[in-house]
Amino acid sequence: MSYGPLIGQLVEALRCLPGVGPKSAQRMAFYLLERNKNGALQLARALGEAVEKVGNCKICRTLSETETCTFCADHERNRQILCIVETPADVHVIDSSTEYKGLYFVLMGRLSPLDGIGPDDIGLDLLAKRIREENISEIILATNPTAEGEATAHFVREMFSDKDIKVTRIAHGVPIGGELEYVNSSTLFHAFSGRHEL
Amino acid sequence: MSYGPLIGQLVEALRCLPGVGPKSAQRMAFYLLERNKNGALQLARALGEAVEKVGNCKICRTLSETETCTFCADHERNRQILCIVETPADVHVIDSSTEYKGLYFVLMGRLSPLDGIGPDDIGLDLLAKRIREENISEIILATNPTAEGEATAHFVREMFSDKDIKVTRIAHGVPIGGELEYVNSSTLFHAFSGRHEL
Repeated sequence: MSYGPLIGQLVEALRCLPGVGPKSAQRMAFYLLERNKNGALQLARALGEAVEKVGNCKICRTLSETETCTFCADHERNRQILCIVETPADVHVIDSSTEYKGLYFVLMGRLSPLDGIGPDDIGLDLLAKRIREENISEIILATNPTAEGEATAHFVREMFSDKDIKVTRIAHGVPIGGELEYVNSSTLFHAFSGRHEL
Repeated sequence: MSYGPLIGQLVEALRCLPGVGPKSAQRMAFYLLERNKNGALQLARALGEAVEKVGNCKICRTLSETETCTFCADHERNRQILCIVETPADVHVIDSSTEYKGLYFVLMGRLSPLDGIGPDDIGLDLLAKRIREENISEIILATNPTAEGEATAHFVREMFSDKDIKVTRIAHGVPIGGELEYVNSSTLFHAFSGRHEL
């Protein structure tokens, strides 16, 4: 290591960011120290504040700076529909690109028996309690279309099969703007089996 | 913005990193808050310490935690050869991949009249002083092979044309492991004009 310990330590610390390997971490460290010390200080402050003050919403488990997140606290939203997602990023993307105006429940993960992640680790006990106590008419399963996301969706559907609740799954198929030629075979399979009349 | 102000502020702050756009910044923020709060705190600390304690070497201008960097302080190195580079990252990569054992001089930039960056902004006054006072026999110009890097190299060569100092430029040509077919035309031009007998 030809640079000193503090720079080395900064390079190492930057590697905690997803998608940042040794080369980009070094580039970031040099860039910040050479040209953007202010940005570096702001980032340090923002990290500290966010870690200290951001926790999880006690109702839907998403990341929140307040005990109850802005979604759960918003009484304009339809409180009878619950959309179940894996991460807070999913909440964000659904909220900014769809017309959905119901509430959310964030698993903060997915069922993954091999990694020792069971129903209680993803808050399904909390979800069951919520379903018992609140007046929910529809659950929309918006977990990822991966093996684990599908298994999680299936598990949640089974949990409430004896209840009078509509359980739906978001549609999967050819993405808009995509070309059939470049779409993978299971997506195409879904697109055909899920076809609907025009 | 559907997430709170602190998360928004963290996303914004992460965008000061080179190569990080809004999407990756959001991904990083959620990742840190959901899964690596420790890493985030370590990063905040490392940023703060590095910004506070890393300055520039008073001899060669590279980033250094001490008044004189480890290169300039190392009396094992050949003090008669000076390699001129644009950035501290260049020092690092040269030191780790070549046999070069002389000293460095870091411009911390390049000549760029359009951006108002003149000779004094890249420390050429300091370099001239050093050449006058020290016993330098060779200057190796290792600025980038860009228009501005070439102009800077040319300028430095002219500065010392009346002195009895060997001024050299690192070789440019086809990169090792590269294929001629994919090399751009000016590289190939350099490779041919710089050919040498075997």
